[in-house]
Amino acid sequence: MNVSMICHILGIALEVEAAFMTPALGISLYKGEWAAVASLAFTMALLLLIGEIMRRIPVKRTEYYAREGFVTVGLTWLLLSLFGALPFYISGSVPSYIDCFFEIVSGFTTTGASIIPAVEDLPMGLLYWRSFSNWLGGMGVLVFVLAITSSDNSGDALHLLRAESPGVKVGKLVPRMRRSTTILYAIYLGLSVIMFLLLVVDMPAFDALTAVFATGGTGGFSVRNIGMAAYSRYSQIVMTVFMLLFSVNFTVYYLLLIRRFRSALHNEELCTFVIIYAVVALAIAVNITPIFGKFTDALHHSTFTVASVISTTGFAISDFDAWPWFSKILLVLLMFMGACAGSTGGGVKVVRVILAFKIIRRGVRRAVHPQQVRMIHMDGEVIEDETADSVAVFLLLYVLLFVGILILLAFEELDFTTVFSGAAACLNNIGPGLGKAGPMLNYNCFSPFGKVVLSFAMLFGRLELYPMLMLFIPSAWKK
Amino acid sequence: MNVSMICHILGIALEVEAAFMTPALGISLYKGEWAAVASLAFTMALLLLIGEIMRRIPVKRTEYYAREGFVTVGLTWLLLSLFGALPFYISGSVPSYIDCFFEIVSGFTTTGASIIPAVEDLPMGLLYWRSFSNWLGGMGVLVFVLAITSSDNSGDALHLLRAESPGVKVGKLVPRMRRSTTILYAIYLGLSVIMFLLLVVDMPAFDALTAVFATGGTGGFSVRNIGMAAYSRYSQIVMTVFMLLFSVNFTVYYLLLIRRFRSALHNEELCTFVIIYAVVALAIAVNITPIFGKFTDALHHSTFTVASVISTTGFAISDFDAWPWFSKILLVLLMFMGACAGSTGGGVKVVRVILAFKIIRRGVRRAVHPQQVRMIHMDGEVIEDETADSVAVFLLLYVLLFVGILILLAFEELDFTTVFSGAAACLNNIGPGLGKAGPMLNYNCFSPFGKVVLSFAMLFGRLELYPMLMLFIPSAWKK
Repeated sequence: MNVSMICHILGIALEVEAAFMTPALGISLYKGEWAAVASLAFTMALLLLIGEIMRRIPVKRTEYYAREGFVTVGLTWLLLSLFGALPFYISGSVPSYIDCFFEIVSGFTTTGASIIPAVEDLPMGLLYWRSFSNWLGGMGVLVFVLAITSSDNSGDALHLLRAESPGVKVGKLVPRMRRSTTILYAIYLGLSVIMFLLLVVDMPAFDALTAVFATGGTGGFSVRNIGMAAYSRYSQIVMTVFMLLFSVNFTVYYLLLIRRFRSALHNEELCTFVIIYAVVALAIAVNITPIFGKFTDALHHSTFTVASVISTTGFAISDFDAWPWFSKILLVLLMFMGACAGSTGGGVKVVRVILAFKIIRRGVRRAVHPQQVRMIHMDGEVIEDETADSVAVFLLLYVLLFVGILILLAFEELDFTTVFSGAAACLNNIGPGLGKAGPMLNYNCFSPFGKVVLSFAMLFGRLELYPMLMLFIPSAWKK
Repeated sequence: MNVSMICHILGIALEVEAAFMTPALGISLYKGEWAAVASLAFTMALLLLIGEIMRRIPVKRTEYYAREGFVTVGLTWLLLSLFGALPFYISGSVPSYIDCFFEIVSGFTTTGASIIPAVEDLPMGLLYWRSFSNWLGGMGVLVFVLAITSSDNSGDALHLLRAESPGVKVGKLVPRMRRSTTILYAIYLGLSVIMFLLLVVDMPAFDALTAVFATGGTGGFSVRNIGMAAYSRYSQIVMTVFMLLFSVNFTVYYLLLIRRFRSALHNEELCTFVIIYAVVALAIAVNITPIFGKFTDALHHSTFTVASVISTTGFAISDFDAWPWFSKILLVLLMFMGACAGSTGGGVKVVRVILAFKIIRRGVRRAVHPQQVRMIHMDGEVIEDETADSVAVFLLLYVLLFVGILILLAFEELDFTTVFSGAAACLNNIGPGLGKAGPMLNYNCFSPFGKVVLSFAMLFGRLELYPMLMLFIPSAWKK
């Protein structure tokens, strides 16, 4: 394990986090929120100090393999969360440090699950930091670090990118690392700016900005106590559209930009995503029409909520925990699928669900016709056996991990619906669940132990298991 | 598809079912239950007539492949259930045919889920038929057909046995088919006789016999309205022990009989099964001690209930739906694992859970050290990649099927706990679930549509997916 190299990268990440806190500090200074100013300034100083010490650790060797990539990513996200929680704790806005940790992990992992009953009581600077963490976490923090620091195509950069934004296949975009990350960030920024312009005509600039952060990262943090129900139907429709746009593989936008329309839209994952979204949204709209009286109203709430769940954003404009069980069961199942790979959304990703179907179909055919050799195809290309195997392993590990989380949460003595949906909403980075973790409530029904378990569930989910798993496997640390 | 051969085998199976109804008819004659006598006699006549016609269909070809084996097994179980339900329906004991079908599917698949609120109202002959279906389903009906009809080692017999008692690997026992099935039935019968002798000293002979049927098949049907709570603690302990004994791979008993003690007990699956049982039973005992006052009482209820769930029997001596959520969540998760392969129990089987762990471990190691080649071992032997792949496919298909069942049951408008635990209890052939499908209630909370879905879930689970799946795949029927 190349410890010095890992420390070096961690140091840079901490310094970058300090830089990212600057706008929050500015807002708190402007608003005269002195407790927030002090807590932010102290955290930034601490980050810069520790970051600088770690960055200066001499890098002895330059070998950097996959496991170093995983461990670096896992540790970075853990450290950024541990420090990112400090402003809430030091300012006294959230009394328990575990609650602060849960909240900022929820932010960075773009989950949006909250333990703060009334967010409007928070200082504006901290509200900004909380929402901004959604936007930062959406694209991945280390991708940003790479974009500004790394040389092109270096091995460490590739391993880091693979570990932080795994998906099924990396490097589709363009082979050059730095250009890739720059293009990704440009698309992300571009979509965010368009959304901001559409929202700011209808709500205060601060609300529009934080809503963009929460939507762009498919995070889901709101600066209003009643969530996105605080805004007009127009704004809610803008959010619906952009939640879906941010759920799409960014490669599609790149291909559209360079006018390769056929490649962009000949995309099994995108087609499946659109079809599933439309079918579920329509089914739920029919199911909830009696609640809202008119089908058009039901359709508005259904399209918004299904987009919120499938994109793993987690916004709520109505208490979907009060909807019929048909809708609720579909929403919980949808949580696990999530968005497209290469987007800012979470879950196991649509492409893995498609591949699971194809792996199962091949397996069944093999059982029936043992002689025949069959390939798995995707977008017209043959999927290698190794890729299929790794997808199968990922899905089995996902199930196993979810079962592990349920066993740990069984100690909470909460009902099955709350535990199951809460665990699903955290592992898949949605935010609100059902029952006591429903959209109009918060995660304070869980004990500190449960909150720590759920925080790690969020991290496992956001980083697609391996980087966090490495931190718990002693053998990964051996030479 | 060799239709004539399949019809021939189905014909024999129907005639065998008629023969199996004879004791029930005898009991009803002796008791003077004339409605039951008439319904049983009519069903038997119908079975013999249709069976004889089908058996006499000339077999044109003798080719018989895996898919024929799957289809034969799937159709046999479906037909035996459709006819096996008739005595309940014709006698008027259960007014709805779908309820009758659910009940006998639950019997043959050794699930033990019931829609009959007060079983003591049933005629004794029908009670016998209901309990006997548990015992028949435990070992597999076609295995019995094979034992009495087939020539040794014929291809069709092997495909049938593979399809009906799949497990991970078939043919460990002895290579000769007829001797294998005879040994299996001898062990099954031997254990059942011992259990009967232990029970009959403590309860009426009819109760002892039906309890043996329900335990031997790990089915769970009881002839008492209050279930196994009707019997003494001594009898309950006998049941606990035998539920566990019937959950063990019967190969272990064979090896013990031929004095190969080391091979019998050097068995990863058995060790894992025992450890998981002990840990969960102890944890639940501690958790429910406040309910029962004394730890020893809690331990009695916990050892019984955990044995009932892990063996997939589904007996209840207390309303475990009223236990704390910690216990309930553990029990629901345990449902999916089930018993050892090669036993009469259901679920995905312990051996597949172990292999899932090993597949995941290998996959994670591959991600960390891509160069290294690693084998999966089990009981000291190398597991071939094809076996590992088929286990992974089986588990993914199991999850997918479970999700499909949940989506269909979402239409029921029942709460998540009832739907999830009910689906789990049926797919894994346990019996009682939680909530409205709890051990003191029955499956009448589900609509006729839901009961049909659950009936097929039971059949999918008991036959380990493929035989039932074939019936729904048009391509399996093509030439």
